[in-house]
Amino acid sequence: MSSSDEAIRSHVESHWEGIRERSPIYRFLFSDIVIFAATKGSVVARLKLADQHINSKGGLHGSVSAAIFDWIGGMAISSWDLRSSTGVSTDLHVTFVSSAKAGDEIEIEAKAEKVGGTLAFTRATIFKLVDGQRGPVVATGSHTKYVRI
Amino acid sequence: MSSSDEAIRSHVESHWEGIRERSPIYRFLFSDIVIFAATKGSVVARLKLADQHINSKGGLHGSVSAAIFDWIGGMAISSWDLRSSTGVSTDLHVTFVSSAKAGDEIEIEAKAEKVGGTLAFTRATIFKLVDGQRGPVVATGSHTKYVRI
Amino acid sequence: MSSSDEAIRSHVESHWEGIRERSPIYRFLFSDIVIFAATKGSVVARLKLADQHINSKGGLHGSVSAAIFDWIGGMAISSWDLRSSTGVSTDLHVTFVSSAKAGDEIEIEAKAEKVGGTLAFTRATIFKLVDGQRGPVVATGSHTKYVRI
Amino acid sequence: MSSSDEAIRSHVESHWEGIRERSPIYRFLFSDIVIFAATKGSVVARLKLADQHINSKGGLHGSVSAAIFDWIGGMAISSWDLRSSTGVSTDLHVTFVSSAKAGDEIEIEAKAEKVGGTLAFTRATIFKLVDGQRGPVVATGSHTKYVRI
Repeated sequence: MSSSDEAIRSHVESHWEGIRERSPIYRFLFSDIVIFAATKGSVVARLKLADQHINSKGGLHGSVSAAIFDWIGGMAISSWDLRSSTGVSTDLHVTFVSSAKAGDEIEIEAKAEKVGGTLAFTRATIFKLVDGQRGPVVATGSHTKYVRI
Repeated sequence: MSSSDEAIRSHVESHWEGIRERSPIYRFLFSDIVIFAATKGSVVARLKLADQHINSKGGLHGSVSAAIFDWIGGMAISSWDLRSSTGVSTDLHVTFVSSAKAGDEIEIEAKAEKVGGTLAFTRATIFKLVDGQRGPVVATGSHTKYVRI
Repeated sequence: MSSSDEAIRSHVESHWEGIRERSPIYRFLFSDIVIFAATKGSVVARLKLADQHINSKGGLHGSVSAAIFDWIGGMAISSWDLRSSTGVSTDLHVTFVSSAKAGDEIEIEAKAEKVGGTLAFTRATIFKLVDGQRGPVVATGSHTKYVRI
Repeated sequence: MSSSDEAIRSHVESHWEGIRERSPIYRFLFSDIVIFAATKGSVVARLKLADQHINSKGGLHGSVSAAIFDWIGGMAISSWDLRSSTGVSTDLHVTFVSSAKAGDEIEIEAKAEKVGGTLAFTRATIFKLVDGQRGPVVATGSHTKYVRI
């Protein structure tokens, strides 16, 4: 990671800190999330799955996957140009590909396809980590936000 | 509501009780949700928005709307034939139409378009209640689940 | 249908005529579509399925369902306030519920949930007509458009 | 491309030839599409945009983008294990990021995230080619199919 990438990662982290305080659901779910890397328009995060992420069958809760895509879409937009306001959502789509369980660690990668004057478009993937490497795709998401200030 | 509809509402309520214990995110968000009515394939619920439902800008959190559609899709499937297992999600789509804030009451209506042997398809709408009546549409969702046992 | 509704239907029909000439795919697919009714924000159309609507298995082609939702979303926006420009699409979601075949007649109903200064949100349903009445849901769609001129 | 990849590309091409004859909308839109490369679960295609792909404003028609994602999702599934039946669609989501016009050449890349015994999940991206290289993202799509035979 270049020093410039480190500045981006640091900005995304600050942005997240600012939101965390005022977002109970994110605090409930993502207190232990780690922003692993960030470059312009792209963010990678890791999360160890614990009880609060699990559904009644013992797998990653679909609502949690949706929240992850909501969260990381905003982070990817904030990484675009170090902005602190990332707009409001218009559409969020989640496809559930496979499962993961408590104790598993997941890695999420998001990419802003475009951050325009009015709309921003992000996509992301949740991977299950296997021996520290990306294994099966758990879920994919796309997230459109209205970003005109 | 006919006595048969009351049996359906009662089943959905029991189904929800069973899931609630083993679903921390639903318990965090929906402890106060009220299942207002249920008929075959259709469920109406109400929720008074409180701090845990709100984003950093003071509006209904997008992740909470997504969780609502995840939750009520399963309830609508359970109302179809009083089943207790409602499958796993394959696709969840949310469109965010307008906002609502803490203190507002919302009404959610879900409808199972089809519950087949393999897949079930539900759609739902979140309305803001204004003077106890349905006002603006806050969000719409569609939810596909794999229901083969 | 009131005289005002007839004015809306007439506007939607003119809007469609204007687009048809400059939209080869719509002309290929929808030359025989009938705009059955229109009120503010709502349009109902009917289409008899023929060879050009069918996939290699003999059922309604998924791409045709997607085109139907694209088309009728714009029609519903045009019905909102008799506008002639209905914006550009940002997100289109289609859920395929059941099938229909050549010779079947389908009815499509679209509703604009909101037409704002920047974004418009529509939803629609394709029904198979059975003895002239709405039968099974064939597909459902949601369509978000950017409408700032 | 290895000889094995060439076998995959050849299979996808044959699969496409088989469908083309019985799919009027694909024939209308994709007669000139080129399957550029294929590996297990991944297909790249190119299309020069012509009149039949354009909307009334002169840009790539949203319904055509949707058809592209419908089409290439099936091709990616066929590349998975050289199967000739690629199932029926359950959900198709398209996000429209930017535009392209007649005369532009686009490249579409699709990836099957998973092809399971029951469901298959694909994602794809449409790029505009600029000097023969991938330029702006035009649209992104996700496509879920039911593949149990």
